[in-house]
Amino acid sequence: MITVLEGGVTRVPGFLAAGVRAGIKRRGLDLMLLASEDGPVVAAGAFTTNLIKGAPLLVTMKHVKNGELAAIVANSGSANAYTGKRGLRDARRMTRLVARLLKLRTGDIAVASTGLIGLRLPMRKIETGIRAAVEELLNSREASLNAVKAIMTTDTTPKEIAVRVDLGDGTPVTIAGIAKGAGMIHPNLQTATMLAFIVTDAAVSPAALRAALQNSIDQSFNMINIDNETSTNDMVLALANGRAKNRSITLKHQDKRFQAGLDEVLTELAWMMAKDGEGASHLIEVQVKNARNKGDARRAALAVAGSNLVKAAIFGRDPNYGRVIAALGYSGASFDPSKLSLELVSDRGRVNLVKRGKPRPWRAIGRARDLMRSKEIEIHVDLAAGKACATAWGCDLTYDYVRINSRYTT
Amino acid sequence: MITVLEGGVTRVPGFLAAGVRAGIKRRGLDLMLLASEDGPVVAAGAFTTNLIKGAPLLVTMKHVKNGELAAIVANSGSANAYTGKRGLRDARRMTRLVARLLKLRTGDIAVASTGLIGLRLPMRKIETGIRAAVEELLNSREASLNAVKAIMTTDTTPKEIAVRVDLGDGTPVTIAGIAKGAGMIHPNLQTATMLAFIVTDAAVSPAALRAALQNSIDQSFNMINIDNETSTNDMVLALANGRAKNRSITLKHQDKRFQAGLDEVLTELAWMMAKDGEGASHLIEVQVKNARNKGDARRAALAVAGSNLVKAAIFGRDPNYGRVIAALGYSGASFDPSKLSLELVSDRGRVNLVKRGKPRPWRAIGRARDLMRSKEIEIHVDLAAGKACATAWGCDLTYDYVRINSRYTT
Repeated sequence: MITVLEGGVTRVPGFLAAGVRAGIKRRGLDLMLLASEDGPVVAAGAFTTNLIKGAPLLVTMKHVKNGELAAIVANSGSANAYTGKRGLRDARRMTRLVARLLKLRTGDIAVASTGLIGLRLPMRKIETGIRAAVEELLNSREASLNAVKAIMTTDTTPKEIAVRVDLGDGTPVTIAGIAKGAGMIHPNLQTATMLAFIVTDAAVSPAALRAALQNSIDQSFNMINIDNETSTNDMVLALANGRAKNRSITLKHQDKRFQAGLDEVLTELAWMMAKDGEGASHLIEVQVKNARNKGDARRAALAVAGSNLVKAAIFGRDPNYGRVIAALGYSGASFDPSKLSLELVSDRGRVNLVKRGKPRPWRAIGRARDLMRSKEIEIHVDLAAGKACATAWGCDLTYDYVRINSRYTT
Repeated sequence: MITVLEGGVTRVPGFLAAGVRAGIKRRGLDLMLLASEDGPVVAAGAFTTNLIKGAPLLVTMKHVKNGELAAIVANSGSANAYTGKRGLRDARRMTRLVARLLKLRTGDIAVASTGLIGLRLPMRKIETGIRAAVEELLNSREASLNAVKAIMTTDTTPKEIAVRVDLGDGTPVTIAGIAKGAGMIHPNLQTATMLAFIVTDAAVSPAALRAALQNSIDQSFNMINIDNETSTNDMVLALANGRAKNRSITLKHQDKRFQAGLDEVLTELAWMMAKDGEGASHLIEVQVKNARNKGDARRAALAVAGSNLVKAAIFGRDPNYGRVIAALGYSGASFDPSKLSLELVSDRGRVNLVKRGKPRPWRAIGRARDLMRSKEIEIHVDLAAGKACATAWGCDLTYDYVRINSRYTT
């Protein structure tokens, strides 16, 4: 059983957080620090597949390679991407300063940045900010909230979650995470950079943590991404300090409950990102079942959730299921159109749009419009081609989305 | 040399056109007929790759298989897609009626439909419309214009072009085309269905016409499409009546000038579609040069032209070149970011945004904002990785785009 707890990363014993204003953005907190009280602990990371990687990623990828990290420093307001050698130097300087102040090795510090591409970091402000953050490191509710606020860009809500789960050996462990969206959820979630930092007190080997993290990412963050539109700076890091003293989780001795807990944390964060997509007025959840295989299920779900036409129709509360069908058709998934079923679901009920290939007459689906008054819309797709399923998330395409993204730098 | 002529398909001797109001749409012309005066002539077609194909496509794919067609009937207002066996029967009925009235074989008639998916065709109205169109068939300027108007959906301008070109053997031939967009140019051009009908008086074998048509499509319509977001009903047809009496073009005796003329017709129509993208305020042309190979050049150009973030930035006249760089990075093209150059070009001049890996300082590119006052914006990308080049077209993402696509059925 998974229990959801109040609060964020500081619910996990042994982790401290801080969020301060360094003055990089025009207003608000913009520099965060997340640190282990035990020095270096087990760590794993996942990074953007974009050919162009921001300087912080190049530094962090190197630092996490040995499976250990002790702290994460991150800023919003500037991505430090496409900034050449000076950018690399700046990212390294951030890790060096944190290491010095916390009496750690530079190689144990991860660094992340989010914001505009092509801007150099204001290093003086950042250094002052890092000093302030080190002073403020705390294991409090507020500290976790400040940390997540400091990495927000176009996010309208801070995203954090903590869960408790009993492992296979009966030991209770806590898993928690903070994240920033994903301004541009669907079809290019991560061009606005997705950051997520996960901590746990479970004892787990670096390889097992890496594997579990990748599993969770594949069904969470990667299901709100489509079109390979990955940012230069996407980063997910997980730190595990082993304080729970469970029987250590390894590749050989995996623990399904740990995976379930981690899945819950990442899926919740992904869901919050989709819900907070730039300018979004509806969350769209696409559940595909009975696909020929997992790949088909994922492709089909992502194609529907990522279709601009579907997204615009949902904004306009227009039950234009033809657009869903067209998206399924070009998704690359194999299925027989004459067996396809489609259902629209919200907290106001459910409406069959297509049943085993038979569309409902257009005039008869006024009820679907009513369903779409809800903020969360589910599209259930039955491909009738096999047994695999997948869920993807997106949000609608609105006037506000255009407004936000046409005025980002100015 | 290619000479652009006034007018559309009726510039080609031996072809008649008509566009009438059948009453399928709320207003305007909605049924067109294009017919050869010589009965069946050489024909080739290209069709959507969407798994789900509208009924008219299934019928037309069969009828064009023998390399001959005599007439094309098309309607707007309803796509006759996802309409099951009754839809197939309706599409066949349309070809049968045209054949009977024009004293042709049913197998020589192509049929196309565009509009909402999942609606049955109002067959009584369509049959009355077909009879009226047959009466009105003419080789006049107005007939061509009426024909193209009858296939418009969200298009704001009729798209037609005619060119004259001297073939290798000195014979002048005419090539002309009409098309409908592509409401939703980029990233899913064809979900709103793209139709293009090309006619020529050149003498060309079915196989050579098919090959030439595919070549032209690859650098025109396929460069304003991305993400596999193809509609259920996309169709391009070409008819060649041989009246020019040139030495017949075959796969063995190809003619570069014929190809160039055809390229011109399709590229112009593609350009018109991009410019008329739903709600568009800017046409975006992305020219990629020095890519490692053709595939990389195409991928890179399409990724930039199809990026929602780039499109929104151009709407807001925001020279946010980081978004272009991010799109190039995830495009799949191979290149060295430190050698990349980016230039913004319009009729107001040109601005270097990145020169061999060095971005211009943010503050210094106010001039780029001024350039973006033009309606047509070019982004020139030098990947410095090889010698291949490609051009893609798109349009910006605007409030009107969202408005149009959130209120399509209602």
